[in-house]
Amino acid sequence: MGTDESYAALALKVWKAQIERADKLFGGLSSAEVLREIAPGRNRALYLWGHLTAIHDAMLPLLGLRERFHPEFDAAFVSNPDKSRADIPSHEQVRQAWNTVNDELWEGFAKMSWSDWLQRHSAVSEEDFAKDTSRNRFAVLLSRTNHLSYHLGQAVLARK
Amino acid sequence: MGTDESYAALALKVWKAQIERADKLFGGLSSAEVLREIAPGRNRALYLWGHLTAIHDAMLPLLGLRERFHPEFDAAFVSNPDKSRADIPSHEQVRQAWNTVNDELWEGFAKMSWSDWLQRHSAVSEEDFAKDTSRNRFAVLLSRTNHLSYHLGQAVLARK
Repeated sequence: MGTDESYAALALKVWKAQIERADKLFGGLSSAEVLREIAPGRNRALYLWGHLTAIHDAMLPLLGLRERFHPEFDAAFVSNPDKSRADIPSHEQVRQAWNTVNDELWEGFAKMSWSDWLQRHSAVSEEDFAKDTSRNRFAVLLSRTNHLSYHLGQAVLARK
Repeated sequence: MGTDESYAALALKVWKAQIERADKLFGGLSSAEVLREIAPGRNRALYLWGHLTAIHDAMLPLLGLRERFHPEFDAAFVSNPDKSRADIPSHEQVRQAWNTVNDELWEGFAKMSWSDWLQRHSAVSEEDFAKDTSRNRFAVLLSRTNHLSYHLGQAVLARK
């Protein structure tokens, strides 16, 4: 294995480990537990799960893989705070969307070559990328992995 | 910039961003706030800060940089749960240790070549490393960055 491959493979391994941790944690919460606030007055576990689903869904176009599955998740879980809207996706809808989005990402990752990771992501213009090549797909992978870990640390508090 | 350099530089950039986020968050907590539980019955912010300091301190020998500064932090912040011991390091001692450890790590990172990151870490034997080369220093960097993000997501709850 060349060194480029080592770096990208390691980052994918860490991503996968966090996804599996999230599957286990969120998947193991009861319908009552997903509606429990992680701390008094804070977000509910369902909001965190939907939030992560929305952010991962947005990675699909960002990495040039495909259009989003659930752009409607943004109003429920990104642009508005928890408990501000009555009509958010249900526990079951979030679970299904989470699985769909992450399965699709993983399939997309498998098709990306090691050098693909160093290409620009779709939210940066060619001109801006020429000035700062660190705005690439590998940066998206690392930052979203850490974003996932950040909210996993919170979601674990919803468990008794 | 070669591709190896790009991967390692990006991972270091994400590490640095999380450290700065932690500096700002923990550094901004009052003496009363560090002793506040992040949620009822959960860890206090000071415990999380000490825990992260201990784990980062242990990265120094793990990456072959130097011996630990504060092995005594383990009993207070790793091997025993919060509120189980009366004699843990103070707010000021944790702050100083946090700064010392992370400054030293950053200096060490700067001296590491890109290929150094793919060498084995010190907790794996040469024999085991030959069987699984993913047990390297880059894996330590990625996993500890995510560990930091995980607890940052919790520590932010100590803020009013």
